[in-house]
Amino acid sequence: MSLTADTPWVLRNDADGVTTLTLNRGERFNPLSEEMLAALLAEFKAIAIDETVRVVVLAATGKAFCAGHDLKQMQAQPSEEYYKALFQQCSKLMLAIQKLPQPVIARVQGLATAAGCQLVGMCDLAVASDNASFAVSGVNVGLFCSTPAVALSRNVSRKQAMEMLLTGDFIDAQTAWQRGLINHVVSPEQLDACVAGLAASIIAKPALAIRMGKQLFYKQLEMGMAAAYQLAGQTMACNMMDDTAQEGVQAFLEKRSPVWK
Amino acid sequence: MSLTADTPWVLRNDADGVTTLTLNRGERFNPLSEEMLAALLAEFKAIAIDETVRVVVLAATGKAFCAGHDLKQMQAQPSEEYYKALFQQCSKLMLAIQKLPQPVIARVQGLATAAGCQLVGMCDLAVASDNASFAVSGVNVGLFCSTPAVALSRNVSRKQAMEMLLTGDFIDAQTAWQRGLINHVVSPEQLDACVAGLAASIIAKPALAIRMGKQLFYKQLEMGMAAAYQLAGQTMACNMMDDTAQEGVQAFLEKRSPVWK
Amino acid sequence: MSLTADTPWVLRNDADGVTTLTLNRGERFNPLSEEMLAALLAEFKAIAIDETVRVVVLAATGKAFCAGHDLKQMQAQPSEEYYKALFQQCSKLMLAIQKLPQPVIARVQGLATAAGCQLVGMCDLAVASDNASFAVSGVNVGLFCSTPAVALSRNVSRKQAMEMLLTGDFIDAQTAWQRGLINHVVSPEQLDACVAGLAASIIAKPALAIRMGKQLFYKQLEMGMAAAYQLAGQTMACNMMDDTAQEGVQAFLEKRSPVWK
Repeated sequence: MSLTADTPWVLRNDADGVTTLTLNRGERFNPLSEEMLAALLAEFKAIAIDETVRVVVLAATGKAFCAGHDLKQMQAQPSEEYYKALFQQCSKLMLAIQKLPQPVIARVQGLATAAGCQLVGMCDLAVASDNASFAVSGVNVGLFCSTPAVALSRNVSRKQAMEMLLTGDFIDAQTAWQRGLINHVVSPEQLDACVAGLAASIIAKPALAIRMGKQLFYKQLEMGMAAAYQLAGQTMACNMMDDTAQEGVQAFLEKRSPVWK
Repeated sequence: MSLTADTPWVLRNDADGVTTLTLNRGERFNPLSEEMLAALLAEFKAIAIDETVRVVVLAATGKAFCAGHDLKQMQAQPSEEYYKALFQQCSKLMLAIQKLPQPVIARVQGLATAAGCQLVGMCDLAVASDNASFAVSGVNVGLFCSTPAVALSRNVSRKQAMEMLLTGDFIDAQTAWQRGLINHVVSPEQLDACVAGLAASIIAKPALAIRMGKQLFYKQLEMGMAAAYQLAGQTMACNMMDDTAQEGVQAFLEKRSPVWK
Repeated sequence: MSLTADTPWVLRNDADGVTTLTLNRGERFNPLSEEMLAALLAEFKAIAIDETVRVVVLAATGKAFCAGHDLKQMQAQPSEEYYKALFQQCSKLMLAIQKLPQPVIARVQGLATAAGCQLVGMCDLAVASDNASFAVSGVNVGLFCSTPAVALSRNVSRKQAMEMLLTGDFIDAQTAWQRGLINHVVSPEQLDACVAGLAASIIAKPALAIRMGKQLFYKQLEMGMAAAYQLAGQTMACNMMDDTAQEGVQAFLEKRSPVWK
């Protein structure tokens, strides 16, 4: 494929409730340029209010998942204001993934570095091919991965995060799995099937329960235990009042499958 | 055993400082009905001020540890006020375990699902038989396990918790152990011995140190590092002034066993 | 070596940007006496403003890394005021390690117990010999390791921390590594090489990026996600404006090694 100005930054495919967003600059390792960030933010904004979308898969073309920011673009505009706006935009994307009503699954087929590793950290679930690898390697060019550190340090132990941040060293997919950064490691051939399996499992549940649950999950993580229980209890009571939960419980008691919709 | 209205919800056994509370609706997988919650809360309230109790073991009759809330009872009373009160009562139990002066050890012999998995998460320690399994499966009936999420997300990595919550899938005892949700996995035959070993180790220490330490542990987890050290330092100074610590240190320096009580 | 009043509590060696601080009471398992705490605090205070120091290695003479507080000294002064001041001083040391601009690597060759285990928890990175072992064993003498709990509970899962605190039991180096408390386990012969490798990797990066990154890392850990991103984005923009990052990125784009200094 040869690139033109019209080549979309992100491809969108919708099928049976699963929307796949594919970073489409594979030949450049899918850098998070201004244009890529804007394209992703626009997609997530649209998806957030699209009730036909039940699960989002974040994928990428080419050999790498995402190599982080677009260093060439950054180098061309050496002003602190520009950089502040850029990192703010990138953080906005990361928070948009977490705030999205639908779960987001990262599909990682190759290297995920710097803000690319951060993307993996921010997705709700992540599946990686066994040849994938992860690093927060900005420190190698003198730019400590401070924003990726926010995501990474909330996924793995602090010493494991610190070593990656200080050395820039890669970890392989198996190590990432053992540490809890990703949910599954499979062969490249099994990658799509594994992602599809998770998506199908989520789609089989009512949208309301998933939406309320995802939102509650991240909110309560930032609270003390007592306040977390207070909010979680209210959320569950509200969830239980919905027709889907009433039917689900009824079906369970009658030993039949629930009929939703 | 055939159930009657008089069959106690929870059995209590006291032996040598170890109080075993056994959920006693094994044929129904020990659901946390209103009655079961009330019985457990009453027991923990009594134990909290009973100085003869040094360790609590939370066990269960039958094939399962606990399958969560009593869905039949919930279905019979479809009002938001009822559900709010129910989840508040359940959260009160969970917090009572954490606030209890004595350590609580979960003894898990079979499946622990939804609020049953939450119970395991809230106990100070947990030991499981190798045929035990864990899930937060409310989402399967359209009811996201929001309150169990509070406990689970404070025991395992966020992606591991999120996958269990979104899919409702089970993890086995070995996986639960690798992720840090439980302390030991043993054969069914070794389960009681393993629990007894932990209990004996705790009983061998002075009650005051254990009580002050447990309370400090959960408080400091919700603080910033500097404030946590401030409180922990005060706690340790106070602990050190007690006769038991003075005797313990003296005995250590004299290379003899401490004589307590 | 026979001890005299003049035997330094801490040895300092500076070589090529790596400062090694060696606890020098190996025959007594390097207790954190008043004198040892004062000596360490003085060293860290000096290092914090010494730009020739890029990495600190915290090591120890003898068979043990550090066995915690000096119980003999504590026993001699049984007053709550004394203990409060002592634990405050110790906490000050722990926080000084985290606040130090330079990364600190623990080099653990034997047992690390109580405040010795806490030291390992507070260092940015830790490497251990395969015969090292870790415990928070104060509870064995009736003194719950409350201040070590602050560090330990921020490095491993809460149930893993709680078991160590309640039982006083040791874990071996392999277990400590699996749980994320230490970064590497190697044979005693490889210990220095492993530490040196990590130090060399850090020294190869610009000091500014490491300093800004380390500070940001611990600050953002105590913030909610949105506030953490706000601070991290500002930090990265500021980092990116520095000559070292500009040169690093330029070199990367030109496919050459960066020329720093």
